Amino acid sequence: MQRIANLLVVKDGHVLLLKKPRRGWYVAPGGKMDAGESVYTAAVREFTEETGAKPVNPHVKGIYTMVIMDEAGENVKDEWMLYTFVAHDLAGTPWTTTTEGELEWHPIESLQTLPMAEGDRTNLLFAVSQNGMQYGTFFYTEQFKLLREEIQNSVGGDRQ
Amino acid sequence: MQRIANLLVVKDGHVLLLKKPRRGWYVAPGGKMDAGESVYTAAVREFTEETGAKPVNPHVKGIYTMVIMDEAGENVKDEWMLYTFVAHDLAGTPWTTTTEGELEWHPIESLQTLPMAEGDRTNLLFAVSQNGMQYGTFFYTEQFKLLREEIQNSVGGDRQ
Repeated sequence: MQRIANLLVVKDGHVLLLKKPRRGWYVAPGGKMDAGESVYTAAVREFTEETGAKPVNPHVKGIYTMVIMDEAGENVKDEWMLYTFVAHDLAGTPWTTTTEGELEWHPIESLQTLPMAEGDRTNLLFAVSQNGMQYGTFFYTEQFKLLREEIQNSVGGDRQ
Repeated sequence: MQRIANLLVVKDGHVLLLKKPRRGWYVAPGGKMDAGESVYTAAVREFTEETGAKPVNPHVKGIYTMVIMDEAGENVKDEWMLYTFVAHDLAGTPWTTTTEGELEWHPIESLQTLPMAEGDRTNLLFAVSQNGMQYGTFFYTEQFKLLREEIQNSVGGDRQ
């Protein structure tokens, strides 16, 4: 089962997004966890490898189960886990062009309209604008059309 | 890859633990995620199935990569994910005896001394006594002797 960690940097009202060449869709920098890595270590490593900059004080904001169905939405083809982190500062200056695509700063509000997978929109908007944690399952087709999402949130959990 | 969610209820200075019959080790109630479940849904379902009570406002406190090695600590035999939740109240009265073992309330401090897997001690103590999130990798033998742990913590992440 694949495990993917991504990380959204939010700074001065802008977010750092990677524009992927294939569809022109935007994503938060990230990638596959290595064997034996923690989700935190993977998110930091992947972000740094993809941007050339280092996130400051990253914190997880979402844990998602990703279910990939056939185009008819009837049969499950794959299932994997997504861990979304946020950081409010970064050390170093991110590259603008990488082998993965173009790195661009966009106003936070543009997360509502930029082309991206609809489940990514849900989780990136949560990461930048809501307190606490989000959990859920996204059901996608293999062409990354969102069929359905089931979302839960929580806040708190600290000692009282 | 297995995904396990467990949940520790902390109330009136006590934690609800399950004493497993095989070794007499204590665990937080929990179990395997079903296909397509979120980690949150799995933690609530497993806790409720194992205790007969329902956690109130559960919140994730830890995400751990579990690496199982052979007894010599040389070869990886398995790898799975553990998600640890905490809740500070519960609805209903938990059973005392279940098919999984005995459910017992213990003072929070007893987490430091009760017999349990050493990685569980790390993550349950964090869940009840520290703010923020914990991440990490636990390296165990197949007999659940802890070989090594690599831990990271984070706080914050909310919008500023």
